[in-house]
Amino acid sequence: MIITSDTNPKIKLLLKLKQSKYRKSNGLFIVEGSHLVKEAKMKERLVEAYSINEMEGYITITEDLMKKIASTDTVVKEIGLCRIEENHELSNKILMLDAVQDPGNLGALLRSAKAFGFDTVVLGNGTVDLYNDKVIRSSQGAIFKLNFIHTNLVEFIKSLNGYQIYGTDVVNGIELDNVKKENKIAFILGNEGNGISKEVKEVIDKNIYIPMDDTESLNVSVAGSIIMYKLR
Amino acid sequence: MIITSDTNPKIKLLLKLKQSKYRKSNGLFIVEGSHLVKEAKMKERLVEAYSINEMEGYITITEDLMKKIASTDTVVKEIGLCRIEENHELSNKILMLDAVQDPGNLGALLRSAKAFGFDTVVLGNGTVDLYNDKVIRSSQGAIFKLNFIHTNLVEFIKSLNGYQIYGTDVVNGIELDNVKKENKIAFILGNEGNGISKEVKEVIDKNIYIPMDDTESLNVSVAGSIIMYKLR
Repeated sequence: MIITSDTNPKIKLLLKLKQSKYRKSNGLFIVEGSHLVKEAKMKERLVEAYSINEMEGYITITEDLMKKIASTDTVVKEIGLCRIEENHELSNKILMLDAVQDPGNLGALLRSAKAFGFDTVVLGNGTVDLYNDKVIRSSQGAIFKLNFIHTNLVEFIKSLNGYQIYGTDVVNGIELDNVKKENKIAFILGNEGNGISKEVKEVIDKNIYIPMDDTESLNVSVAGSIIMYKLR
Repeated sequence: MIITSDTNPKIKLLLKLKQSKYRKSNGLFIVEGSHLVKEAKMKERLVEAYSINEMEGYITITEDLMKKIASTDTVVKEIGLCRIEENHELSNKILMLDAVQDPGNLGALLRSAKAFGFDTVVLGNGTVDLYNDKVIRSSQGAIFKLNFIHTNLVEFIKSLNGYQIYGTDVVNGIELDNVKKENKIAFILGNEGNGISKEVKEVIDKNIYIPMDDTESLNVSVAGSIIMYKLR
């Protein structure tokens, strides 16, 4: 049995999931490539797997349909339909994102967050959709290993207990080398162009900065990753 | 006087410079936005400046022509025609790139290189074109502050004197925290998918790695920037 038509209800759902609003309303998203399908399976997040080849555990679809579903020009042979899951457990190290907008930046930050033990990532309003295909691709599986919370950052920060909370700034605050490693740390990265929003700034009392030579700012995923490496 | 036609020789040149081969053959490239035009001027790399508004020191062109020349969908009001310059002076800290291919990664690395004093950047074969519009945009002016060398990396490494040379690897080698800060350091980052090429590996005797938790690799611009931050 091979699915050949895009009027098939399974295929119709997969095509809809290319849009953020349908990912949200269905609580589902797509991953591409056998590596991510396996990762999803291992983490019990896989609903169904699709392949252009007949393989055990996979639903077979035509290459034409796969091309329609897949987001890249490179050949995708397998995709996985996955469940969106969130829980509100907090790790000791928390990364908060205030409207980070570039999918590549978010993906890179997620890899670093996992690598350095920032296992809870809080996505404030205006942050790029976590289940965007580019975010998933550049996060390289970190999406299945982290705990995500979508919320209002001001409320979230006010609700935190026992955490040292840091903003980030290009010049003001404590130089990163002088920040004390603490057990419970939550820090915030802002938007690529505008930094941390005014409302969020008002509920932070300390900022971290990275000393730089003749440079206005670092790429946000670079800055965030250096901080996580240092405070891991 | 306002240029209105794309048959004007100045405009013809600008349009050609969208292609890498013409940038190379003419030794020229384009920057977009008043910030970069000013930076180019300050560094004496500006040949001519163009604007859609009448401004002193700028050649006026129509909005339509500007749209044809500019690389982004966002409105560009000023562009600068700039000279490519290379010299073979070496700073004490050197960043070498072996076929880094994503323009955003290269741009982010250049910002970090400048910020952390890696003022010479060596671009090996297969590395994305430095004067690509995305590289320039994401490098945010670092392009005018660094010294670039395009060369064969194996030859270059063999020619270095008194530098501690490091490769980078995801698992093998010396943990970054244990790398001794030295006066003269040159380190190599490899391609996003394949790492450092076999030929280059053969002329390196030490590797640096960044310890990671349950993560196969970091984004290359993140990994490189953490290393530069640490060894600055």
